[in-house]
Amino acid sequence: MPATPDDLVRDFIAAVERLDLDHALTMLSDDCRYDNVPIGEVVGTDAVRSTLGPFLNGYDEVQWVVHHQAALGTLREGVVLNERIDRFRKGDEWHELPVAGVFEVHAGLITLWRDYFDRDTLFRLLDGSIT
Amino acid sequence: MPATPDDLVRDFIAAVERLDLDHALTMLSDDCRYDNVPIGEVVGTDAVRSTLGPFLNGYDEVQWVVHHQAALGTLREGVVLNERIDRFRKGDEWHELPVAGVFEVHAGLITLWRDYFDRDTLFRLLDGSIT
Repeated sequence: MPATPDDLVRDFIAAVERLDLDHALTMLSDDCRYDNVPIGEVVGTDAVRSTLGPFLNGYDEVQWVVHHQAALGTLREGVVLNERIDRFRKGDEWHELPVAGVFEVHAGLITLWRDYFDRDTLFRLLDGSIT
Repeated sequence: MPATPDDLVRDFIAAVERLDLDHALTMLSDDCRYDNVPIGEVVGTDAVRSTLGPFLNGYDEVQWVVHHQAALGTLREGVVLNERIDRFRKGDEWHELPVAGVFEVHAGLITLWRDYFDRDTLFRLLDGSIT
């Protein structure tokens, strides 16, 4: 079990990188808000699964490289901020999205996950026009 | 004088909010990198002044509301991450940009300032089509 909010978010990202969405979702509260800032917010683990699952399924390998991560508080009530490059491999090609993430933690679970990025950069990544 | 990287970034933001760019720039290293992720990076305090000055001059009031801020390290070598709403008032209208910022600190100065946001949201803010 993670000991700190920092550990919890690192474990969450590690589960995403293993493409183990089932395990990743156990780290979110049932009513977790998942906010992709320039696109919009969904609420609840089912909605996170519906949003993230098909996206991750489109790739052969995922790496979310955390450049910096800093946290406040405890697992009871905490906040984690990080700076990442989210990398997605399809065949021989890696596609990269620079992201800054915010995670609010309550009672040992992530209750809000908010990612800041450029929408157009994501869309060009999705249609394969940038790597 | 600020005692921590957290204080330094708060002092920097306070100077920006006072529209005191001269004072704000004293908190950046001469070779500071200022990276607006979806637009590009400039290097050096003169370039920061050229980028930020005309932008700030277009507004009557500026508030950068920090929702969360967390830091690592010391003023000698540290990192600060924050989540903000940058608000800009022109006449009666406030324009808002959600931002996540990363600040690297060395020897008491900010050596890298990187803001994550949606480029299209900024451009619509600049042309007045969103508030």
